[in-house]
Amino acid sequence: MTHTDGTGTRHEGDGRDAFALLDRTHAAVTPRLRAGLDSLPGPLRRVAMYHFGWEHADGTPASGRPGKALRPALVLAATRALGGDPAVAVGAAAAVELVHNFTLLHDDIVDEDRTRRDRPTAWTVFGVPDALVAGDALQALALGTLVAEGHPAAPAAAARLGACVVELCAGQQADCAFEERGPLDVSLDECLAMAEAKTGALLGCACALGALYAGAGEAQVAAMDAFGRQAGLAFQLIDDLIGIWGDPRHTGKPAGADLVALKKSLPVVAALTSGTAEGAELAELYRRPAPTDEHVARAARAVERAGGRDWAQAEAADRMARAVDELSRAVPDLAAAGELLSLAEFVTRRSY
Amino acid sequence: MTHTDGTGTRHEGDGRDAFALLDRTHAAVTPRLRAGLDSLPGPLRRVAMYHFGWEHADGTPASGRPGKALRPALVLAATRALGGDPAVAVGAAAAVELVHNFTLLHDDIVDEDRTRRDRPTAWTVFGVPDALVAGDALQALALGTLVAEGHPAAPAAAARLGACVVELCAGQQADCAFEERGPLDVSLDECLAMAEAKTGALLGCACALGALYAGAGEAQVAAMDAFGRQAGLAFQLIDDLIGIWGDPRHTGKPAGADLVALKKSLPVVAALTSGTAEGAELAELYRRPAPTDEHVARAARAVERAGGRDWAQAEAADRMARAVDELSRAVPDLAAAGELLSLAEFVTRRSY
Repeated sequence: MTHTDGTGTRHEGDGRDAFALLDRTHAAVTPRLRAGLDSLPGPLRRVAMYHFGWEHADGTPASGRPGKALRPALVLAATRALGGDPAVAVGAAAAVELVHNFTLLHDDIVDEDRTRRDRPTAWTVFGVPDALVAGDALQALALGTLVAEGHPAAPAAAARLGACVVELCAGQQADCAFEERGPLDVSLDECLAMAEAKTGALLGCACALGALYAGAGEAQVAAMDAFGRQAGLAFQLIDDLIGIWGDPRHTGKPAGADLVALKKSLPVVAALTSGTAEGAELAELYRRPAPTDEHVARAARAVERAGGRDWAQAEAADRMARAVDELSRAVPDLAAAGELLSLAEFVTRRSY
Repeated sequence: MTHTDGTGTRHEGDGRDAFALLDRTHAAVTPRLRAGLDSLPGPLRRVAMYHFGWEHADGTPASGRPGKALRPALVLAATRALGGDPAVAVGAAAAVELVHNFTLLHDDIVDEDRTRRDRPTAWTVFGVPDALVAGDALQALALGTLVAEGHPAAPAAAARLGACVVELCAGQQADCAFEERGPLDVSLDECLAMAEAKTGALLGCACALGALYAGAGEAQVAAMDAFGRQAGLAFQLIDDLIGIWGDPRHTGKPAGADLVALKKSLPVVAALTSGTAEGAELAELYRRPAPTDEHVARAARAVERAGGRDWAQAEAADRMARAVDELSRAVPDLAAAGELLSLAEFVTRRSY
């Protein structure tokens, strides 16, 4: 049995529980997110509503679903896994999703990406100034509304979310810096650290916030954070594999999109730093701009033959194993951790 | 007797108390700010240290003073005026200054300004991506460290600061939008509302945070906010007068800088909407790009003859009167409000 989420990606089998959970999360968090966006002054609200897929560029209602709601689902599932009431964590879940979307708005400006979720990015529609300040406003909305709710866990959660934003910024900065460097000038460790900051940190923070709202102690919160980080790294590794070998019919992106963009993704850097002849060939291919289809196909073969594909798959499996290990520390009764496990498996079992 | 602050602006007479207060604030808040910036990951720290004037572009130490420290001084003075201990509000004062500087980093990108505090702006030195994410990180640092300090007033202060950031964003968005409109398509009320959001809101928030850290009640906090907002509008009106008639030797900007940029500042919009022949002449001048010195001189005369200069001076005086009125509500014993009064007078008595 296959499912399709709002991004057009297909999922199979064990994803069913995760899909139901994401749907329930979506239903629980959307009203809070919409209320937050509705509180913004007119022009900022309009950019944000467009970015979330709830309005067209002309301000008329749109029925788009903003995203997978993965991060809010992790917040609520973590709260439930530790015996808390997810209802009290809905504001924290919304805050995490607001932070995620503020970074998307800014990343699209910085990366000059023109398409997101099958629509023109906000900056291409409203201009860089409006998209930039709308992103700033979403960050403020996230942190401001979290503390305004007055839950006892809110100050610690906001401090953690603030520190996470700094880490996300560092990850995005590193990602941009890597693209400026030569093909052999980025180490795999640097690349993994960047992915942990850019993707792992917010998934970890989501789980940690869920734990805080369940009243968990410091060790449990830290283990939950580590679980989310490792699952986030697995997620990024799979995402990078999709960026090379993903089926355009499922991903909505052209084949080999990351290779076309000469992106230094994890499998690519693993190949580049492999010390193999194919790695050297890939480095040569990465020195020429505007590659042809044949060029992209050669690059994909080089990544594979240099061991980049196998490494990424093995590394993703290893990170998932570490995630499960951390989760067992955070939630000794693994039966209570079923939702978190199914979310972690959902993000790493996407077909490509 | 005249004084010179770090920005090269001269001040006279009654500013002496304010100067001593700003110096004391600078000494109290700088260690906190530097510790915050030092906590940032390397490349973000470097952009921030440069922006604050503490490092050169190559990372070597610089002795620059980041700014007037007006907003942190308002926080500490408001705490003291309401019987609180300013020492406990130093973190809140630093948070307000971090927010101010995050907006400067982003405003310089959005406005494509190339010079700030007599130095190249951060985005011209480090590129838009690094300056943008450094700004994001400063916002997170501001709100995150405020709540992390654990003062009982911190959650309310962070919620207020978050709401203020949304207002600053709305003000910046409106400012950009006005520049896109025709010379007669911006009303004076819209322009005042924009200035209140872009300048008044953060000065008001600074005073409100100071009140919160003194344990003040809601009415006092609101009156403090209103005091800061009105003083902020007076400040902006004076700033706009300086933008037209400021002496380049004191301002560090070319004569008539705002007219060269065809900026729809408050005196300009007052002139444009005056219904006078000179207002119509100014509208004609504002329809042509890249004005000459002669063009700028004619525009300045037109603003003056259309009553824009007199209006702005009278409006600034009126806003200061309202500020004092609000202050008397917040601090019934006006003797205790001496510092706040001297700060308000300092910002509106700058020579130009």
